Amino acid sequence: MALRTDLTGMFGIEHPIVLAPMGGVAGGVLAAAVSEAGGLGLIGAGGGDREWLDRECGLAADGTGKPWGIGLLLWAIDMDIVLSVIERRPQAIMLSFGDPAPYAAAIRDAGIRLLVQVTDMDEAARALDVGADVVIAQGSEAGGHCGHRATLPFVPSVVDLAASTPVLAAGGIADGRGLAAALTLGAAGALIGTRFEATHEALISAAEAKAIVAAHASDTECNRALDIARGSAWPAEYPARTLRNPFLDRWHGREAELASDPVALQEYRDAAERDDLDYVPVWAGEAVDLITDLESAADLVGRIGRDAEKAILDAAKRCVAATK
Amino acid sequence: MALRTDLTGMFGIEHPIVLAPMGGVAGGVLAAAVSEAGGLGLIGAGGGDREWLDRECGLAADGTGKPWGIGLLLWAIDMDIVLSVIERRPQAIMLSFGDPAPYAAAIRDAGIRLLVQVTDMDEAARALDVGADVVIAQGSEAGGHCGHRATLPFVPSVVDLAASTPVLAAGGIADGRGLAAALTLGAAGALIGTRFEATHEALISAAEAKAIVAAHASDTECNRALDIARGSAWPAEYPARTLRNPFLDRWHGREAELASDPVALQEYRDAAERDDLDYVPVWAGEAVDLITDLESAADLVGRIGRDAEKAILDAAKRCVAATK
Repeated sequence: MALRTDLTGMFGIEHPIVLAPMGGVAGGVLAAAVSEAGGLGLIGAGGGDREWLDRECGLAADGTGKPWGIGLLLWAIDMDIVLSVIERRPQAIMLSFGDPAPYAAAIRDAGIRLLVQVTDMDEAARALDVGADVVIAQGSEAGGHCGHRATLPFVPSVVDLAASTPVLAAGGIADGRGLAAALTLGAAGALIGTRFEATHEALISAAEAKAIVAAHASDTECNRALDIARGSAWPAEYPARTLRNPFLDRWHGREAELASDPVALQEYRDAAERDDLDYVPVWAGEAVDLITDLESAADLVGRIGRDAEKAILDAAKRCVAATK
Repeated sequence: MALRTDLTGMFGIEHPIVLAPMGGVAGGVLAAAVSEAGGLGLIGAGGGDREWLDRECGLAADGTGKPWGIGLLLWAIDMDIVLSVIERRPQAIMLSFGDPAPYAAAIRDAGIRLLVQVTDMDEAARALDVGADVVIAQGSEAGGHCGHRATLPFVPSVVDLAASTPVLAAGGIADGRGLAAALTLGAAGALIGTRFEATHEALISAAEAKAIVAAHASDTECNRALDIARGSAWPAEYPARTLRNPFLDRWHGREAELASDPVALQEYRDAAERDDLDYVPVWAGEAVDLITDLESAADLVGRIGRDAEKAILDAAKRCVAATK
C-alpha cells in the first residue's frame, strides 16, 4: 500500500512526507535518507553559505538518485545565492519567512519546483500570486521559527484559498496520525521537522538528541530571546520555538533589556562556543511529546507512511450505514 | 451513512459532535437543537447560576428527548452547585479549568457521564485519575478560555495516555475536515464552540454574530485584559481568545497597569453596560476563518457529520496498492 497525492505525483515519490529544511540540522545525509526512503528530503541551507552547500549537496547527490531539494530563508538571501542554488539542480527549492516574489520566476524558469512556506493568510495569498507549485501552511506549534497560527485550523483555510495548488501541513506532525490528519484537512502531505531532528542522520549533537527524546511539549516555548542573544537578523514577526533552558527562562519577557546588556550577551556568546545547553536552545516543536527514541530516517519515513494509511483506513471503518 | 465511535456508542447518538458549553452562549435551545440533530448538546452554565439553569435546562428538556448535558467551570463552583446540577438529570456533566477531584465521585455515582476538559498533559493525567468517562483535549486555538498547547499535536499525546478512555478534540474545528482530522488523530469526536456560536440558536446579539461571520483568525488573540477589565476571578493560567477590539489593543501587554487604573476599569464597565463591541470582546477561536455565514444548528450538525465522512473516505481512496 501507499498514499497517492498531488505531491507524490508531482515528484514521483512514494510517501507524501517532506523533510523540513531545518537550518544546519537537515544536511545532505539526512535529506538523501528521506528521499531514498520514498519521501522528499530538503537540505536546510539557511542563508545559503556556499561551503556548507558544496558539502551537503554533494552528500545528498552521493546518497540518492531520487528527487531532493534545498530550503532557503528569504530574509537572508539575494539573487546571487538563489542562482547558485539553482545551479546545483535540486528538484525543489523551498523559500520561507519573507517575500518570494524576487526569486519565483528564476526558480520556475529553471524548471525547478517552487515550494513556499507561509505562516498566515496574507503570506498564503502572496505565495499563490507568485506561482508557487506547493504552499506549505506552517503552524506555530512547529519547532524553530514560526508565525502565530495553529496548524489544525490554518491548513483548511489555506487549502480553500489555494484551490488546485497542493498544500502541505507543517507544525505539530510527528507520526502517521498527524500525516493522516493533514490529508483529511485537504493537504497533499506533511512537512516534518522535529521528528527528523531525532534521527541518526541529523546534524545535531548527542546531547541535543538526548534532550529532544527526553523533552515534553510543555518544555518548549516560542521566544525572541534566542535571536537577540546571538545577534541574529531574524525578523521580529517570527519567534522561534525551542526547548526552554535557564538562560531563556531568565530573559523571557525581558528581550529589550537583554538586547542592551553587553555582559549577558557576552555570557551567551561564551556559552555558545562550548555548546552549553543551559544557554544554547535546542530547536523543538510541540510534537516532541510524541518522540520517545532516536530512529533512522529511512525507518521513520516508512513507518509514518504506513501508520498514516492505517489511521485513515481505521477512520474509514467507522463510516457505516446509518441504522435509521 | 454515519460515523460510529466510542462517543456515539456511549450516548447512543448519531454524530461524534459535541456542542462546547460556551458560558452564557450555549443555552437550552442551542443544546437541544444540537442533540435533536444527532450530536450532544451541552449547556454552558459557567458557575452554575440557578435561575439561568432553571430556564435553560427547561428549554433543553422541552426541545429534545435525546441526551444533553451541562458544562461547569471548576474554579467557580462548589459541591452545592454540582448537586443541584446533578438533580437536573443531564446525561453528561462536563467540568473544565480546575481540579475535578472533589466532584467526580458524586457525578459518576449519580449515573451521569463525566466529561473533563484538559489543557495540558498534567490535567489529562488528573482527569484519568478521577475516572473521567471522556477526556476533552483542548488546544489554544479554541475560542474563549484555553491553555497553551495546540490541538494537532496535543490530541494524539492525550490519546496515548488515555488508552481505552475516549478522547475528544477541541479547538480549531469548525467543519467536517476538522472532525475527520480529530478522528484520524485517534479522538472519538470533536467538541465545537465558535462554529455553533454563529447559529440562529446561540445566545449572542446580531452584532456579535455579524462580527464572527466577518472576522478572520488573524483578528483573534489570546489575552488576560478582558478578565482583568471585568474583574473576573478566572485563573491567570487560562487566557481567553477573542476578537481583538480597540480596548484590548490599547491594553495588550499592559495588564498590570490596567488592573490598577480605576478610570479605565470604570470606562470598561460603562461600555459593557451598553454592550459596546469596541470594549466587550466577542469570543472566537482561530476556526473563525472557516465561518462565512449563520446557519441553523441542526443543518450544521448534519453537514459537519456528512463532510467528515466524505473527508475520511476521500483520504481512504488515496490509499492504493503500491506500484513497486
